[in-house]
Amino acid sequence: MKNRQVLVHLTEAGKGETAMRNVEHLLEEFGDDVAAEVVANGDGVKVLLITGPYGDEVRALAEAGVRFAVCAHSCRARGFTREDFPRVVTVVPSGVGEIVRREAEGFAYIRP
Amino acid sequence: MKNRQVLVHLTEAGKGETAMRNVEHLLEEFGDDVAAEVVANGDGVKVLLITGPYGDEVRALAEAGVRFAVCAHSCRARGFTREDFPRVVTVVPSGVGEIVRREAEGFAYIRP
Amino acid sequence: MKNRQVLVHLTEAGKGETAMRNVEHLLEEFGDDVAAEVVANGDGVKVLLITGPYGDEVRALAEAGVRFAVCAHSCRARGFTREDFPRVVTVVPSGVGEIVRREAEGFAYIRP
Repeated sequence: MKNRQVLVHLTEAGKGETAMRNVEHLLEEFGDDVAAEVVANGDGVKVLLITGPYGDEVRALAEAGVRFAVCAHSCRARGFTREDFPRVVTVVPSGVGEIVRREAEGFAYIRP
Repeated sequence: MKNRQVLVHLTEAGKGETAMRNVEHLLEEFGDDVAAEVVANGDGVKVLLITGPYGDEVRALAEAGVRFAVCAHSCRARGFTREDFPRVVTVVPSGVGEIVRREAEGFAYIRP
Repeated sequence: MKNRQVLVHLTEAGKGETAMRNVEHLLEEFGDDVAAEVVANGDGVKVLLITGPYGDEVRALAEAGVRFAVCAHSCRARGFTREDFPRVVTVVPSGVGEIVRREAEGFAYIRP
């Protein structure tokens, strides 16, 4: 297990840049010793769209071990489907459910 | 004790709808196995006003076991009293104090 | 060790007043029994500038035992240096790194 575990909660479209920089700085500081996951819900899911400005960065960070999850409720409400996101992004039944599970596992929570 | 414990921090008036959906999805996902509490402070307290759009929903969720708390400091600063909220809403001395206590008890924290 | 530990994450310039009131209420409620730290990153660092409206209050709270930290990445990106903040403010390599460490130590997380 990684010594550091952290969940970044991305819930506003305007917080995409900050969330990406947060993840970058966490990798820079903790290297291989951090398990990082970005959970997007609400309008935050828009940040991870394949057509969005972060498609390439999401793929690169996923290769570096970062997990990305989008909330199925939030996608449905906005007409997005699985195909609207890079393959490395996981669709979870509920963003808040995912957050609760991770915090119970000991993940630190950060809300940009 | 419930296996899942979660606190939703409602601190902006514009986050009422998201907070209500979060709670709804938590109940949907974890059912009877979740203890959920909404703590409102700052302008977030306005969401829970008896005259607000969520009066009925707050009562229904409270019957389903969800707790609602508003910060006394925030109420005083806005001229609200106990009577301005549905009976199921508890007025706590300090919203941040309530949050700190719940997190220490193991509640996951979610900030819509 | 203090029985209560809490980290206030200040990441928006407009949240300065709320963050200061949060800290004030935590001291009022828990007195000497709380270890409180404000970690500022993003535009939140502007709140703690020596020329800002909270210079005096930051110094007073620091004397009361509150810690203040600003993110070096966020300062560099905005052209701020160590001298732009009151002496009681610590510059940490990364705001998110500081947050992850504190939560792992058991600090409750509050995001105004």
